[in-house]
Amino acid sequence: MSSHHIVREKQEPALIIANGASCSEELLGQLLEWSPFVVVLDQAIYRVMELGIKVDVWLGDFDKDHDFEAIRLSQQPLEIVNTPDQDKTDLEKAIDFLIGRGFPAANIVWATGRRADHAITNMTNMVRYKRQIKLVMFDDYSKIFPLAGTFQKWYVAGTPISLIPVGTVSGICTTGLRYNLNQETLTMGYRSGNSNETESDGLVTIRAQQGDLLLMECWD
Amino acid sequence: MSSHHIVREKQEPALIIANGASCSEELLGQLLEWSPFVVVLDQAIYRVMELGIKVDVWLGDFDKDHDFEAIRLSQQPLEIVNTPDQDKTDLEKAIDFLIGRGFPAANIVWATGRRADHAITNMTNMVRYKRQIKLVMFDDYSKIFPLAGTFQKWYVAGTPISLIPVGTVSGICTTGLRYNLNQETLTMGYRSGNSNETESDGLVTIRAQQGDLLLMECWD
Repeated sequence: MSSHHIVREKQEPALIIANGASCSEELLGQLLEWSPFVVVLDQAIYRVMELGIKVDVWLGDFDKDHDFEAIRLSQQPLEIVNTPDQDKTDLEKAIDFLIGRGFPAANIVWATGRRADHAITNMTNMVRYKRQIKLVMFDDYSKIFPLAGTFQKWYVAGTPISLIPVGTVSGICTTGLRYNLNQETLTMGYRSGNSNETESDGLVTIRAQQGDLLLMECWD
Repeated sequence: MSSHHIVREKQEPALIIANGASCSEELLGQLLEWSPFVVVLDQAIYRVMELGIKVDVWLGDFDKDHDFEAIRLSQQPLEIVNTPDQDKTDLEKAIDFLIGRGFPAANIVWATGRRADHAITNMTNMVRYKRQIKLVMFDDYSKIFPLAGTFQKWYVAGTPISLIPVGTVSGICTTGLRYNLNQETLTMGYRSGNSNETESDGLVTIRAQQGDLLLMECWD
């Protein structure tokens, strides 16, 4: 897995640990190394504590009972952020929180798998933040991030890259892919750019005129 | 889990076994009972044979080598359908195949989990078939199906129901939910109807004027 998106920034990205399926300990270990500032969402605090991970912020609407003092003691110092807004998911609140703190980037983990409604909402909601913060979602099979401006990255030949339109995306132009697009339109549910791949060792560029595109590097 | 969607049809639905994450044996057993006609996609044949399941159709582009005769013998009688079209996923080809055979309905399993690009494409592609065949996708946490016309079903209080717009969906009206919508618009990535639930024991109705809505019953 490349860390290209991360090392380009001067400031290290934060890490959001959500409450979907767990990832491998290896991936989580890497993410913790890259991202020293850790925000954990609501019920996930217990799974994180079981793994012996120190977090910086615990954020949620806390609609279930918790022994806040015990958790605070075991994680000292811990910032507890209560976000009762029912119109936003905990993940959105965590992203808003990090934007407010001035973070330019955040990695997100444990946000996919398990419930399909949460997974699809977590993935696709990333597009609305593309001008405000650089988000990358990881799981054991996928690296997911919204296209913002022109994407450019060097890949080895045959790397799978999927272009997933969130709604309709028009004016898509790519170079370096096996099936390149030239001013084409993709529409979720009807025509997606699933299962494309890099043609040869070299630079891939992807841009779009209008709409929200998710890029996914996935592996089996 | 309710089998409401299935028992209403006179003819039993087919079952498509795709190549994502496996589900519990209990869920697979139920689906096999409801759906005697089974289509398995490409590489999934090996995982299905390991479980001792008899299938009717094996469908794929078969871009990897297989011992077709050995597989045919172990599954006799087995229809092998070679679908080399690179513009469609194996799941789309299987749905097309079942429409061609006159099936009014199909259940789909093993189509979520693992690679996020395949999962999101498999889920959202269901909307394009909503006038041709009744599709329901299952995994251990979710039941996913496209809204076609007006949806009506009796639920117990507190059942989670998510309304996931594939693109923009307008004129959404619901009754029986905790947060009802009245001629409202949902847009994927910006405003979704994630994590709604039924208000009380009784009938839920959901309809929309324009666009493609996925309904999801999910549980933790």
